[in-house]
Amino acid sequence: MPTISKKGQLMPESPIRKLVPFAEQAVKNGKHIYHLNIGQPDIKTPEVALKAVKENDVEILSYSRSEGSETYRNKLANYYSKHNISVSNKDIVVTTGASEAIAFIFGSIMDVDDEVIICEPFYANYIAFATAASVKVVPIISSIEDNFALPAIEEFEKLITPRTKAIMICNPGNPTGCLYSEEEIRQLADIVKRHDLFLISDEVYREFTYDGHSHFSILELDGLDEHTIMIDSVSKRYSMCGARVGCLVTRNETIRHTVLKFAQARLSPPTYAQIASEAALETPSSYFEEIKDIYITRRDTLIAELNKIEGVKVVTPKGAFYCIAELPIKNADNFAQWLLEHFHLDNETVMVAPASGFYSSEGIGKNQIRIAYVLNKESLVKAANIIKEALKVYKD
Amino acid sequence: MPTISKKGQLMPESPIRKLVPFAEQAVKNGKHIYHLNIGQPDIKTPEVALKAVKENDVEILSYSRSEGSETYRNKLANYYSKHNISVSNKDIVVTTGASEAIAFIFGSIMDVDDEVIICEPFYANYIAFATAASVKVVPIISSIEDNFALPAIEEFEKLITPRTKAIMICNPGNPTGCLYSEEEIRQLADIVKRHDLFLISDEVYREFTYDGHSHFSILELDGLDEHTIMIDSVSKRYSMCGARVGCLVTRNETIRHTVLKFAQARLSPPTYAQIASEAALETPSSYFEEIKDIYITRRDTLIAELNKIEGVKVVTPKGAFYCIAELPIKNADNFAQWLLEHFHLDNETVMVAPASGFYSSEGIGKNQIRIAYVLNKESLVKAANIIKEALKVYKD
Repeated sequence: MPTISKKGQLMPESPIRKLVPFAEQAVKNGKHIYHLNIGQPDIKTPEVALKAVKENDVEILSYSRSEGSETYRNKLANYYSKHNISVSNKDIVVTTGASEAIAFIFGSIMDVDDEVIICEPFYANYIAFATAASVKVVPIISSIEDNFALPAIEEFEKLITPRTKAIMICNPGNPTGCLYSEEEIRQLADIVKRHDLFLISDEVYREFTYDGHSHFSILELDGLDEHTIMIDSVSKRYSMCGARVGCLVTRNETIRHTVLKFAQARLSPPTYAQIASEAALETPSSYFEEIKDIYITRRDTLIAELNKIEGVKVVTPKGAFYCIAELPIKNADNFAQWLLEHFHLDNETVMVAPASGFYSSEGIGKNQIRIAYVLNKESLVKAANIIKEALKVYKD
Repeated sequence: MPTISKKGQLMPESPIRKLVPFAEQAVKNGKHIYHLNIGQPDIKTPEVALKAVKENDVEILSYSRSEGSETYRNKLANYYSKHNISVSNKDIVVTTGASEAIAFIFGSIMDVDDEVIICEPFYANYIAFATAASVKVVPIISSIEDNFALPAIEEFEKLITPRTKAIMICNPGNPTGCLYSEEEIRQLADIVKRHDLFLISDEVYREFTYDGHSHFSILELDGLDEHTIMIDSVSKRYSMCGARVGCLVTRNETIRHTVLKFAQARLSPPTYAQIASEAALETPSSYFEEIKDIYITRRDTLIAELNKIEGVKVVTPKGAFYCIAELPIKNADNFAQWLLEHFHLDNETVMVAPASGFYSSEGIGKNQIRIAYVLNKESLVKAANIIKEALKVYKD
């Protein structure tokens, strides 16, 4: 039989996906699972978005424009202006999720074996998109001891080679919950300017910042228009993960022109989802205030509960809805599987994401898990208690 | 400023897209344009699909499964069984349009510089997906003189190298309207088996076959399960181009497993569009009978009108809704632009797709255009007449 590609073999398997059969078996065995493993919020999608789709008057479900519908991009530009980001509709290319934006950017700026430096731990799928594009992710390690702060400039400079094309960040961060300060973003600006690199920022969690911290976008930087490419999505903001609508925003015309060629090849982003996304921009600010309160309560609950567990180290996240927890174990992959396979407390267990999938450096993060606090307060207390009791009996 | 990738530079620009500014200017100047340039049908989407979306009860627009929703894949398998294609839901991976299926397949079976042989002229975006994946399309020329029939086996074998991974066809064909016979498909089966290659078939126009010819899918071949990968989409079948739902179907488990890794990286296909696609499977057969009648009338009208024009050569298409017409001119790119910029008949003109975008061999097809017969009969008569009058005065 004909063989698959080396690239296909190298494509990483989602670390969560490996656990799915064990989770399915656990459910079959009658166990209830608290899902802390995915970034699928339990928050309701704004009514205004759902309504727009229910009341749509489409008769021929046609292609939209490859760059996204004009009215949606106009309104998006207006949304950004409210977030101190001054762009026009022409700076925006609507994509099928932030995922597609990443693929288009990697394709537009990197050739085979080119390199992008990404702070580690990072969103696991960055590696998949790099593999698909035959380019290399060069990890720069941020550590739990430093609260996952931006590594020092010298550390970046050690990693820059003639093949380095970009530095990429996720801010607020998945999986760390880290929020970079304006000062940190300006440090990055300095590096990319000095080394003539692109700066890519995945800002899909923009609204999810806590404790009075506000988000500073790379598009707020002056004099860096040719370098900065921002990635965005409606998935988390409006709890619309299934829409598959994202975008990339850049004032660099050459990049936009190039990205548009990739966009034209796939014809258009989904039409119904653009109707929902456009309407979602009318979501009242009270929606976000409520959600923010919910997530702060959840975060505080989770962190407090985790801190009660002996040997567990955790950083209080300033943004997004994830945290990385270091556990007093050797191998979190095994532990996560064991939780599903062999452990229960009153017939309940938890599913977590082993952090190994968020690291590409060998041997780092093996004792860490990522927890998404996308469940209600009571569930989080129970889930943390299950982890606590499990750690008492678990043997590596 | 940092530079874009070579790949980004090589990404082809849609040949139609180049004409868009001229079309926009023509409209501004008050001209009416008959759009024969795109495969966007004017046929209404089935009511059952539109209704399902309007009546959806989604409250949290969540990710679907990466491989597509289970109920949709179940019903799809049932649909295929009615078309003599025996597959189960596990053989299907739902994709964001056929476009994504192509990208996933190229990624799963080819590494950098690997080769896929495709009958030329071919769907222009195949080249774009090959460029994005850093792989090479090796064209095998089918000619208008032979009614775009499958080239001889010997011609294929001349092109097979150690880097050849697959042969790819579009059947019924865009842009040719060619429908391969069972015998032709069996010839291909023979080649791919002998040379241990994959056989990829883009069958998105399955329903659009005329004159009693029926479609023979590569999945109807026996003993070729490890070799065959079929690509499909709801776009044309249900006039749902904007849904962005396609799929790939293969009985090769290794391919499916590999494709799924690509699918997981982009999380899921769009949820609303899957609701529409699942419901669309309930479309009554009368819908297709009506559409087929419409397209046959359109095709017959168009071909008859084109045959009246001196120096125009055209093959009567047996499937899809395109035809390639050879014109008595040197350069169809210039002609297509000139039609928009400088010609009108009673203030009307036509927009066609120059066929050069469907060829990768240098210098071939320069005097050809692709016409999509997606307009009503009266419009087609008028459009053909405009081409006729234009050719009388056009100078290369």
